[in-house]
Amino acid sequence: MGEGRKRDLVSIDDLSTEEIMELFRHADGFRADLRAWTHLCQGTIMATLFFEASTRTRLSFESAMLRLGGGKVTAAEASSTSQSKGESLADTVRVVGGGYADILVVRHPRDGAARVAAKFASVPVINGGDGAHEHPTQTLCDLYTLWREKGKLEGLDVVLCGDLRYSRTIHSFAYALARFKANIVTLPYPGFEMPDAVTDRLARDFGLKVDKARVTDLPGIAGGDNSAAYLTASKPHQLALFTQLTPHQVGHIDAIYMTRAQRERHAGESTEGYPRISREFLRSDIMKDARVMHPLPRTDEIDYEVDSDPRSVYFQQAELGVPMRMALMAFLLGKIELSSKPPESFATDPGLLGDVAALNCQNERCITRTEQVSYLAPEFRLLRETPPALSCAYCSVTTEAAFVGSRGSLRYHRYNAAEARRIKPANRAYFATEEQAQAAGYSALGRAGRESS
Amino acid sequence: MGEGRKRDLVSIDDLSTEEIMELFRHADGFRADLRAWTHLCQGTIMATLFFEASTRTRLSFESAMLRLGGGKVTAAEASSTSQSKGESLADTVRVVGGGYADILVVRHPRDGAARVAAKFASVPVINGGDGAHEHPTQTLCDLYTLWREKGKLEGLDVVLCGDLRYSRTIHSFAYALARFKANIVTLPYPGFEMPDAVTDRLARDFGLKVDKARVTDLPGIAGGDNSAAYLTASKPHQLALFTQLTPHQVGHIDAIYMTRAQRERHAGESTEGYPRISREFLRSDIMKDARVMHPLPRTDEIDYEVDSDPRSVYFQQAELGVPMRMALMAFLLGKIELSSKPPESFATDPGLLGDVAALNCQNERCITRTEQVSYLAPEFRLLRETPPALSCAYCSVTTEAAFVGSRGSLRYHRYNAAEARRIKPANRAYFATEEQAQAAGYSALGRAGRESS
Amino acid sequence: MGEGRKRDLVSIDDLSTEEIMELFRHADGFRADLRAWTHLCQGTIMATLFFEASTRTRLSFESAMLRLGGGKVTAAEASSTSQSKGESLADTVRVVGGGYADILVVRHPRDGAARVAAKFASVPVINGGDGAHEHPTQTLCDLYTLWREKGKLEGLDVVLCGDLRYSRTIHSFAYALARFKANIVTLPYPGFEMPDAVTDRLARDFGLKVDKARVTDLPGIAGGDNSAAYLTASKPHQLALFTQLTPHQVGHIDAIYMTRAQRERHAGESTEGYPRISREFLRSDIMKDARVMHPLPRTDEIDYEVDSDPRSVYFQQAELGVPMRMALMAFLLGKIELSSKPPESFATDPGLLGDVAALNCQNERCITRTEQVSYLAPEFRLLRETPPALSCAYCSVTTEAAFVGSRGSLRYHRYNAAEARRIKPANRAYFATEEQAQAAGYSALGRAGRESS
Repeated sequence: MGEGRKRDLVSIDDLSTEEIMELFRHADGFRADLRAWTHLCQGTIMATLFFEASTRTRLSFESAMLRLGGGKVTAAEASSTSQSKGESLADTVRVVGGGYADILVVRHPRDGAARVAAKFASVPVINGGDGAHEHPTQTLCDLYTLWREKGKLEGLDVVLCGDLRYSRTIHSFAYALARFKANIVTLPYPGFEMPDAVTDRLARDFGLKVDKARVTDLPGIAGGDNSAAYLTASKPHQLALFTQLTPHQVGHIDAIYMTRAQRERHAGESTEGYPRISREFLRSDIMKDARVMHPLPRTDEIDYEVDSDPRSVYFQQAELGVPMRMALMAFLLGKIELSSKPPESFATDPGLLGDVAALNCQNERCITRTEQVSYLAPEFRLLRETPPALSCAYCSVTTEAAFVGSRGSLRYHRYNAAEARRIKPANRAYFATEEQAQAAGYSALGRAGRESS
Repeated sequence: MGEGRKRDLVSIDDLSTEEIMELFRHADGFRADLRAWTHLCQGTIMATLFFEASTRTRLSFESAMLRLGGGKVTAAEASSTSQSKGESLADTVRVVGGGYADILVVRHPRDGAARVAAKFASVPVINGGDGAHEHPTQTLCDLYTLWREKGKLEGLDVVLCGDLRYSRTIHSFAYALARFKANIVTLPYPGFEMPDAVTDRLARDFGLKVDKARVTDLPGIAGGDNSAAYLTASKPHQLALFTQLTPHQVGHIDAIYMTRAQRERHAGESTEGYPRISREFLRSDIMKDARVMHPLPRTDEIDYEVDSDPRSVYFQQAELGVPMRMALMAFLLGKIELSSKPPESFATDPGLLGDVAALNCQNERCITRTEQVSYLAPEFRLLRETPPALSCAYCSVTTEAAFVGSRGSLRYHRYNAAEARRIKPANRAYFATEEQAQAAGYSALGRAGRESS
Repeated sequence: MGEGRKRDLVSIDDLSTEEIMELFRHADGFRADLRAWTHLCQGTIMATLFFEASTRTRLSFESAMLRLGGGKVTAAEASSTSQSKGESLADTVRVVGGGYADILVVRHPRDGAARVAAKFASVPVINGGDGAHEHPTQTLCDLYTLWREKGKLEGLDVVLCGDLRYSRTIHSFAYALARFKANIVTLPYPGFEMPDAVTDRLARDFGLKVDKARVTDLPGIAGGDNSAAYLTASKPHQLALFTQLTPHQVGHIDAIYMTRAQRERHAGESTEGYPRISREFLRSDIMKDARVMHPLPRTDEIDYEVDSDPRSVYFQQAELGVPMRMALMAFLLGKIELSSKPPESFATDPGLLGDVAALNCQNERCITRTEQVSYLAPEFRLLRETPPALSCAYCSVTTEAAFVGSRGSLRYHRYNAAEARRIKPANRAYFATEEQAQAAGYSALGRAGRESS
């Protein structure tokens, strides 16, 4: 790990693939006897800062830290924190991370809040779920469970089923499966398909090829042919296209990941006919070696009769969360060492465009849209130059810039104008609208005599 | 204890009388130096799952576990748990009891909820109060205090005073006193008498004989002759009757257990003239050796002047709760061993009638009336065959069955019909109404050719 | 310390000046390695009883106890405590301090509540903030930070800036600065000046001399000449007067203590033009050696740009709170010994007037105005005989008595009547109004033949 520089887990991308595999093996060691590790983090304190309720995630982290021998302090009631007196997230994490606690777990309703916490806290920060952005420890637990069950992740055929539109867990798990080169079959409840943004990122970042899919041997489950898709590991960065006329025939399933209808985010849509896993469903030949996964809590999308089936691993997912989080925290606290290298993004310049003038993240739920501008300027990574697409450094949502300006001449142009293409990369400023450009002091004519870009 | 089978404390009946006495002696040992036991449960985690607020009970359990050297995780705010996302109690305890914690303390507004938790959790469950059903650790603490003060329980004369109708604590304590062969004098605030169901059970299960009582030497306390009763240990299972023309004259009191008016369960009734223990009251000759007990919190039913009287033991009741709970948890976790046998009900078949078809528990507050039928079928114990009375295995409330059917012929009869009496016990099905029987597929005529019961 | 008698920290006055300096040195020792002290309070339990929300203070105490190796139990949600069932504070602290916990930290919305807790609990009580009364551990942390930065406290020039009217922290800090012989410059937001009661007490108890002040070299800060005052250490108990015609010229500042507008206590007043510390402000020559302090949370009264200035110590104030509270709790629990003597008030008779009959504390927020009279009679210290002024033993607010009675004759007089002056001090009773005197059985004529005072 980088000498002296702290590690955080804001996104699953903050760990390299090799590090994740090492953490799995450490988790196995912790799990062998959960009560044998109280010496490891003696004297260490974890703070759980939960600006949004989540008893299950909080208890899992607290249990993990207690089993490591450390202590815990909890601010679980957002309304009674200093936030109600107008304190910024940056101040809160600086105070709690300054002497109160040695590691922070932050859950927050705003997308990108965990990155803000990591930036300002002097101790390691773990993202316990930030809005619709990421929930990386849930994903680690899901991957760990699947890896333990199947002995590998590469090449597995995993069905994602149910409410694929609103489930943050599903999105994160899909990215992680892609990264570990598993294939994904989507089986959404009609109207709750995987969002285009997710499918696009799966194609762009992980080179997944998207086919229509036909899953015929699944009795008693809703969804089906119309909306099913097959996302298979392909060459890196090959753009996905729906090219096949014949849908991919899914004949074998390694795991089905079911999720409840996220009713709290729906606008009252009916969920009649929502998919449901029953004993009969599991008798299907295609499910013979499948594992049934669920992030919990369930409502009624898996029958209670299925609980006793040896292929049901959803309670194990929860159980494995404790040793997995023990491994993660022991690592971030420097109590165990990994021999693998961190991800490249940790060691190298992340290519942030700090001075992006008036460009705001287009995601209204992004933390940069609420926290005071005085301490939190928008930051972006450039995803693509033509047309310019910038990824928010906090919430990862893509914002498109229709206009490009030159910091030298203070003149702006439509992105596809010849003048725009002549501006040196280091000199470029990006704007979503002409109004933004003008508000930042740029003009369509430019400043005389400074056109030196 | 049963080899490898976990022990729970859902009801005070889950401990044998001899085990309780052993736990008292262990509690004495813990109390001798509360801070000397942090090695005993090192590495162990207790989860308090409180679906209903109770700071005092929660703090007592948490303090006990900390003094044993273990850790604790708390889900004290029902509204912020997964319950609000529709999770069942069974799932919650399976998750929290699966790796998060090694022992669960559950408090829940529904009668019988603790039995559900014990059934589904893989770790020991302690009932921290389930609706109007039981609160067994409060009872253990009350008994322990009285035993320490008097050196015995058998034959003591104990006055239960105040709101005897709505106080769950009073009911549980009365059953426990009966089991330990103490005599009970009821001194209710008029209109808040002990419910018939409680008096009936005291007579039926513990053979207590009920007399009218006259308590003349108690100045300044409300209630009195009209409603006072004397319940004395008698031959086992002798049905109680009000046979004496002369009320029993109460001349000596070993303890008076006062309880506040449970105003939160009243329908706005006045509590003017509610009994109140004053210094003057304690000067009465009959109170010379009495101990003043109260489960706390008090409102104004005991004067503050009485606090300094050496006979006042209500703050000791609270204090003794910590070593008592230390002993209980150390036992359930297998950290101390008891030489006594568990109750018979633990070792033997509890005689559950699992397949009782359409019979529902008549108690509307019972957990079986709210949790999803899919995982929680009603279960009963047969109390009595004529007329059929069945005790709910979860909330202990008695439901009467007016109709009995034969599982062979699928024919039902009024319970006292000759045909009903001919059905073999193992073949009987019970119904509260004809509608229930018919909904379960039974008919008054029966199915031809199958009458083989 | 008094043999066997427990120590509490209800007011900063409960520690002698020498003890405070010793605690600072112990805090330095704890701070040198926060994680090296888990043996010190092993087996000890702290309870935080927070009847009013304060996540920051609670977390700081909890962290300090965990770092000392002890455990903690928390009742942070007032609504879910036994208080909602009508329990008195006295009963709550007797229960929690009786076996549950070895030290209590109490936060309560009522002035004087911490003194009640200390009186009834059998274990040490720390005031975590009681209404508008005191918050002594915040003051200890503030003093400790300033002492570490400047190497001394005596003679420092400290500016108190912003909302001086409603900030309890400011008032407590001012008293403490006075006690340690620092000079105070008040720089209020106009309309939010230091209350007369505070200035009066600074003059009366600490002999501070109050001058008008002129602070000319502070660019960009609101407030200023009109309302600024200079309070300088003078001869003890010399009454302060505004005697100088020329305002004191403030030319050097050792620290500026900024506070946010306490909007939750305002009646909707605008805070436009509220003072704000910026980078430019810190460039002023007068600020060269100043430290910028703030109790946090801040809203926008200190620019985020200032955070990185080495003179900004507000995050250190929070950080130093943990070792400071470690030292305090280790001391109160008897785990470290101080060689200094306790304050005189601890060893000697505090001169309480217990039997003050009908006199009520005039402070409507005082705990004696809400808790049941049955257990909490008003108690006062006599501040001054003519006219009679009495300080509430709980909330420290001064109540004036216009009438004085004789306990012998049961006759009362206006305080300045010759008869009043003839009553022996030990025989005097005090009344705010004639109605009070008459309600207590006194008359203007007196009882014949008993005038023996």
